[in-house]
Amino acid sequence: MIDVCFTYSELQDTCGKLSVIIDTLRATTTIITALNNGARYIIPVETVNEASKQKNVYKDALLGGERKGLKIDGFDLGNSPLEYSKDIVSGSGIIFTTTNGTRAIKSALGSKIILAALINSKAVSDYIKSAGNEITIVCSGTKGRFTMEDTYTAGCIISKTARYDLTDSAFAAKCLYESMNKDPEFLYKTCTHLKYLVNKGFKEDIMYSLKEDTTETIPFYIDGKIIRDI
Amino acid sequence: MIDVCFTYSELQDTCGKLSVIIDTLRATTTIITALNNGARYIIPVETVNEASKQKNVYKDALLGGERKGLKIDGFDLGNSPLEYSKDIVSGSGIIFTTTNGTRAIKSALGSKIILAALINSKAVSDYIKSAGNEITIVCSGTKGRFTMEDTYTAGCIISKTARYDLTDSAFAAKCLYESMNKDPEFLYKTCTHLKYLVNKGFKEDIMYSLKEDTTETIPFYIDGKIIRDI
Repeated sequence: MIDVCFTYSELQDTCGKLSVIIDTLRATTTIITALNNGARYIIPVETVNEASKQKNVYKDALLGGERKGLKIDGFDLGNSPLEYSKDIVSGSGIIFTTTNGTRAIKSALGSKIILAALINSKAVSDYIKSAGNEITIVCSGTKGRFTMEDTYTAGCIISKTARYDLTDSAFAAKCLYESMNKDPEFLYKTCTHLKYLVNKGFKEDIMYSLKEDTTETIPFYIDGKIIRDI
Repeated sequence: MIDVCFTYSELQDTCGKLSVIIDTLRATTTIITALNNGARYIIPVETVNEASKQKNVYKDALLGGERKGLKIDGFDLGNSPLEYSKDIVSGSGIIFTTTNGTRAIKSALGSKIILAALINSKAVSDYIKSAGNEITIVCSGTKGRFTMEDTYTAGCIISKTARYDLTDSAFAAKCLYESMNKDPEFLYKTCTHLKYLVNKGFKEDIMYSLKEDTTETIPFYIDGKIIRDI
């Protein structure tokens, strides 16, 4: 059965399951991009304070992340996937904190955890096809509420698996994607968080993040670190 | 702004707003039907114990409701809308308890509360058009999770209002309804709770509940009682 949680607070028992964490705008898109561009590992943390503590342990790591969409004071990088280019991140570790995405990743502890976005949706759907029965797709949401772009991404992945053992929420996500991907402007019209980021000047991030299947990289979260394809 | 909560546990501050409570299969469909057939009032309660207490106060009232879809031992009526016919309920009060719907109604206290289902969706959408700006549509859900039929109903109401000041979840509900109402079999294919009720022998209830706009009755929840059109 494939299930979709629209926010990570809905997540119940994930023990022994595969959890697929989505924060399309922008945390998981950024993490996938960083690993694809040669970052060695990413350590997701929930607070700026915890990021500083990890920096004392991993002294060579870059500090990345956002609050209210913007780079945190004293950090090397924000939460824009376009900042995480090969020349900046190749060979480096990254300590990373965002408002919703890193919390969603932490909420699924106890399960096998992978990260997804539109840019790796086909690779994730292929992985799911062979991953056994119990799969929970976890949308990060925004401030504890449903977000269109994460659910659209969940639906994109489910649609590509061609699996039909779906809960009601998984059916809804699939239906949203399949009816709306015919209208390329749909997300621009309906996503509150997307409009918020456009207003902050991140239009290019959005164009990058909404493009499907530009990479096959799948991040795995294991023992506190996110690494590439195990 | 019209917002949709997929479960009543998502509900935050409703003070001064209009809350529209939906439990299409079957609590709100049944309550609308009962009032339409002449019931004087319905008192929603959360537990069987509370129902018995209210019965001591309202001695002439009928006891109605369900646990696990079935009529409760010692009650006069279950949760099937077809049971609440004119000859049974006209002129009576009803004390009513169900697993999800009555709890959803109680969760919206502090706001102006009306009840909706597919059978009165047009009347509710007309009411919303003139009801001011802040509207929260609350899907009862099942066991704290998203249900397709309630969200489909929320989308039906939103679609009929022709309003576009929608949150992400309200857009998603509208999109689900508008893409899926072209396929009359869609709900039969995707709703877990619908299949559960079919297995319990309630196929006729479902056919009745999924028919749009068979009544203009709008139930209002005021001071502990649900009454017809104020």
